[in-house]
Amino acid sequence: MSRIADIKNAWGKTVAAHPVPRFADLCLRGAGQVMFQSSAWAGLCFLAGIFWGAAHTPAVAWGAVLGLVTGTGTAVALRAPRRDIAAGLHGYNGMLVGCALPGFFRPTPVMWALLVMGAAFSTVMMLGLSRILKTWKVSAMTGPFVFTSWLIMLAAYNFAGFTISGLPHPMMPAQPGMASATGISLSGVWTASLTGISQVFLLNNEISGLLFLAGLAGSSLPAAVFAWLGSLTAIGTALFLGAGTQDILRGLFQFSAVLTAVGLGTVFYRPANGRVILYALFGAVFTVVAQGALNVLLSPFGIPSLTFPFVLAAWLFLLPNIDLLPPSHQTDSQPPPG
Amino acid sequence: MSRIADIKNAWGKTVAAHPVPRFADLCLRGAGQVMFQSSAWAGLCFLAGIFWGAAHTPAVAWGAVLGLVTGTGTAVALRAPRRDIAAGLHGYNGMLVGCALPGFFRPTPVMWALLVMGAAFSTVMMLGLSRILKTWKVSAMTGPFVFTSWLIMLAAYNFAGFTISGLPHPMMPAQPGMASATGISLSGVWTASLTGISQVFLLNNEISGLLFLAGLAGSSLPAAVFAWLGSLTAIGTALFLGAGTQDILRGLFQFSAVLTAVGLGTVFYRPANGRVILYALFGAVFTVVAQGALNVLLSPFGIPSLTFPFVLAAWLFLLPNIDLLPPSHQTDSQPPPG
Amino acid sequence: MSRIADIKNAWGKTVAAHPVPRFADLCLRGAGQVMFQSSAWAGLCFLAGIFWGAAHTPAVAWGAVLGLVTGTGTAVALRAPRRDIAAGLHGYNGMLVGCALPGFFRPTPVMWALLVMGAAFSTVMMLGLSRILKTWKVSAMTGPFVFTSWLIMLAAYNFAGFTISGLPHPMMPAQPGMASATGISLSGVWTASLTGISQVFLLNNEISGLLFLAGLAGSSLPAAVFAWLGSLTAIGTALFLGAGTQDILRGLFQFSAVLTAVGLGTVFYRPANGRVILYALFGAVFTVVAQGALNVLLSPFGIPSLTFPFVLAAWLFLLPNIDLLPPSHQTDSQPPPG
Repeated sequence: MSRIADIKNAWGKTVAAHPVPRFADLCLRGAGQVMFQSSAWAGLCFLAGIFWGAAHTPAVAWGAVLGLVTGTGTAVALRAPRRDIAAGLHGYNGMLVGCALPGFFRPTPVMWALLVMGAAFSTVMMLGLSRILKTWKVSAMTGPFVFTSWLIMLAAYNFAGFTISGLPHPMMPAQPGMASATGISLSGVWTASLTGISQVFLLNNEISGLLFLAGLAGSSLPAAVFAWLGSLTAIGTALFLGAGTQDILRGLFQFSAVLTAVGLGTVFYRPANGRVILYALFGAVFTVVAQGALNVLLSPFGIPSLTFPFVLAAWLFLLPNIDLLPPSHQTDSQPPPG
Repeated sequence: MSRIADIKNAWGKTVAAHPVPRFADLCLRGAGQVMFQSSAWAGLCFLAGIFWGAAHTPAVAWGAVLGLVTGTGTAVALRAPRRDIAAGLHGYNGMLVGCALPGFFRPTPVMWALLVMGAAFSTVMMLGLSRILKTWKVSAMTGPFVFTSWLIMLAAYNFAGFTISGLPHPMMPAQPGMASATGISLSGVWTASLTGISQVFLLNNEISGLLFLAGLAGSSLPAAVFAWLGSLTAIGTALFLGAGTQDILRGLFQFSAVLTAVGLGTVFYRPANGRVILYALFGAVFTVVAQGALNVLLSPFGIPSLTFPFVLAAWLFLLPNIDLLPPSHQTDSQPPPG
Repeated sequence: MSRIADIKNAWGKTVAAHPVPRFADLCLRGAGQVMFQSSAWAGLCFLAGIFWGAAHTPAVAWGAVLGLVTGTGTAVALRAPRRDIAAGLHGYNGMLVGCALPGFFRPTPVMWALLVMGAAFSTVMMLGLSRILKTWKVSAMTGPFVFTSWLIMLAAYNFAGFTISGLPHPMMPAQPGMASATGISLSGVWTASLTGISQVFLLNNEISGLLFLAGLAGSSLPAAVFAWLGSLTAIGTALFLGAGTQDILRGLFQFSAVLTAVGLGTVFYRPANGRVILYALFGAVFTVVAQGALNVLLSPFGIPSLTFPFVLAAWLFLLPNIDLLPPSHQTDSQPPPG
C-alpha cells in the first residue's frame, strides 16, 4: 500500500514540474471522467480496457486517444477555466466521440477529419451546455458527446463522402415479438452485468468490463458497487419489460443505467443512505424505459441512442434538487463532473 | 345557497382535523387542477365525469384514481413544498397518466406497474420542470403528464412485454383529401363543443363534458365560459383548415384549445378585458394549428399528441409576459397551477 | 458621397416628423435585420433583390412585404419595447415567414390567412424566445421564423385545406451515391457563392445575391466580406463531404453558413482579429455539417431545414461566451440583433 502511495507521490511531483506529463495527467483524468472519476489511475484502467476490448478494431482505441487529446487541447486553446481543464472535464466528451465514430464508419480520411473536428466541437458544446445548465446547478454529463455524434451520424446520410459501416438501418418502429425474450441463466446475468459496464465505452467485452470496474474501485469503491448494482437493476428491468435476451447479454440495456446509478448514488447525492440508494435505483429503472423510448424515437433516423438515456435520467432526477439527506450532510452545490 | 356554505364549512373542519380527509382533499384538488381549479368540488365533478364516461372501460377510471393517489403520495414522500401539495399541484399529472395508459394498453400487470411508476415519475418531472420554468415565471402545465406518457408509449414499441391496444399505427405523414371534411350541423357544433371538453380527460362523452363544465362553473364561472368559448373557437378553426368532420365531432381538435382558453383567459391574465379575450382566443386558434403540426410530427412514432398543443401554446403565449392589463390590475407574479 | 449624406439627412428628418415614414423606416430596418443590419438602406437593397429574384413568383415578394408589415405592426400592438421595434427586431421574422410560405404553398385564401397569422405569431415567439435566451445573453436569431414556418408546414399535412406546392416529399433517410457529386468549375464557384447569398431569402438568383451584397456593403463592409467568405467556406466543406453539385450551384448548402459567418465574424465578436476569423469560419464549417444532419432529421416529415442550421450554429458558438479578444476591445454585452 505504501508503494502505491509512493507512486502517487512521484507522479504528483512529475506533473507539477513538466508540461508534457501535466498534459498527460489532464488527459488521463479526462478519461476517468467518463465515469465521474477525476483520477489518472481510473483513466489509465479505462484506456487499458479500451485497448483490450478493441484489439481487433484498433481504430476505436486510437480514435479514443485522438479524441481525448483534441478535446483537451481545444479547451486549452479556447482558454476554458483552468480548474475545469485540470479536473479532466474537457476530455471525456472528445474521447467518447473518438471511441464512437470508428465503430460506425470506415476509417476514411473524411471519418478522421470529422473525428478531430467533432472532438474539438464537443468542447465548444461542453462550454455552452454547461453555461446553460449552471442556471440550475446541473452538469452537462455526456450530452456534448451524444449531440456531437448524432449530428455527424445524421449528416452521414446526407453526404456521399461518408462510408457508413455500423449504423442501424433507418426503419419505422415495430414492436418485437416475445420470441427473442428467451430468459437468461445465472452465468448469463454475470456476463451481462460486465458487458453492460464495458458498453459505457461502446465495447462488448467482459474483461474490459472488469478493467473498468478496477479503475472505478481504485478511485472510489462505492462507485464500483453502484456501477455493478446499476447493471443488475437494468438487467432485471429489461427482463420484466420483455427485452431481447441477446441485447441484454451484449450489455445494450445496461450501460446508461450504470452511469445513472454511479452518478445519482455516489456523485450528486452522498453519502449513500437508504433514500439515496432507492432514488438511484429508481433512476436506473427509469433509464431502461427511457432507452426503449429513445430506440423507437431514433429508429426512423438510423442512429443509436448512445448514452442519452443516462443524460436524460441524470438531468430529470437531479433537477428536482430533492432533499434526500439529513441536513448536516448536505453540500450546497452539486459537484461539476459528467 | 347557505346549505352549500354549510357543507363547505363542515368539510373544511373535517379536513383540518383528520389526516385521511386531508389527503382526500389534496387528491380532489389535484383532480381539479387538471383544469386549473384548486377546488375539491371541481375535482369531485371531474371524477364523476370520468366514472360516467368510462362506464364501459373501468380501468380508465380506476387508473385515474390510482395515478392521482400515487402522484400525490410521491410528492409527500419526496418532501415537495407543502404549499404546492396543498394546492393539488402534484396530483393532476399522475391522474392524467393513469387516465391515459389504460386507454392505449391492455390492463396487464406490466401496464399497471408502468402506470404506478409513471405516476410517481410524473411528480419527479413536475418538480424538475417547474424548477426550470420558474426562471421565467412560467408553470409546467400538463407537460409532466405528456412527457411521461410519451416515454412509456414509445418504450412499448421497443419491448415485447407491453400489449398495445389503442395507439395509432406508425405511419409516414400524408395529407388527407377533402372527402372527410363534410361540414357540420348546428347540433353537431353543440355536441362537438361538449365532447371537446370531455376529451381533456381523454373521453368522448357529452354528459362527461357537461359534468366537467359544472365542476368549472362551481369553482369559477369565467373558467366555464372560456372553456366553452375555446371549444367553439377550435371548432371554427378546424373547419376553416379542412379538418375531418368525425374528428371534430369526437372533440379531438378542441380539448387542448379548451385548456389554452381557460389558462390564458382566466388564470394567467385577469381580469378578462377585451385585450385578454382577444389574446386568449388567438392562443386557442394557434393551439389547433400546433395540434395539426404535432399530429404530423408524431405520426412516424405512433403516439398521440395528448395535451401538448396546449402546453406549447401556454408556454409560448405566456413567455412574452406581455402587459395586457391596465397597470393597477397587474399581479406581480403568475399563479402556480397547470 | 456628400449627396448620399444629404439623402440620409433628409430621410432622418422626414422620419422624425411623420408617422408613416417612421413606420416605413422601422419596416426597412426590419428587412435589414435579416442579415443583422439595422439600416434602411440595407433593407431597401434586400427588398429590391427579392422583387428582382421573385419576378416570376410575385406572391413571394408581396408575401415578404405583408409579413414585414404584420410582424412590425403586431409588435406595436403588443407594446413591445420601443427600442427593439426601432431597431427593426420585430420585422425580420415576419418578413421571412412571408417570403417562405408562398414558395411552398399555392396562394389560396387559407395560405394568406396563415401567412398573416404566422407573421403575427412570429412576433409573439420573438418576444418569448428572446426572454428565455436573455438569461444567457444570446439572441433569438431567425428562430421565430423557422419554428413558425415549421409549425405551419407540418400542420399542412394534417389538414385538407392547404394546397402544398413545393414541400419535399416525406421520405425515410437514404444516403445518396457519389454520382451526383460531379465537381465544380471556377465559374461554378462564383455562381454558387452568389446564389448561396440569395438563398438567405429563399431565392436562387445571382443578381439578387449581388443586390444583397450591395446592401450589406453599404451598411458594413466587413459584413459583406464575411458573407462572401462564409459562402466560399460552405462550398469547400460541401465539396469535401460529397454533396450533390446541383445543390451547391443552387446555393442550398451556403445560405445558413453565410449568416453564421456574418453573425460570428462581425456582430457578436468584433473587431475581427485572427482568432475571431478562425472561430467564425469553424462555425461556418459546422453549419454545413449541421445542415446535413437537419436535412436527414426533417426528411420523414417533408419539411425543409430553412435557416435553422445557422440558428443552431450561432447559439452553440455564442453560448460558450469565449474570450476571443484582447481585454480592451471586449464589449460587456452582445448586441441584440438576429
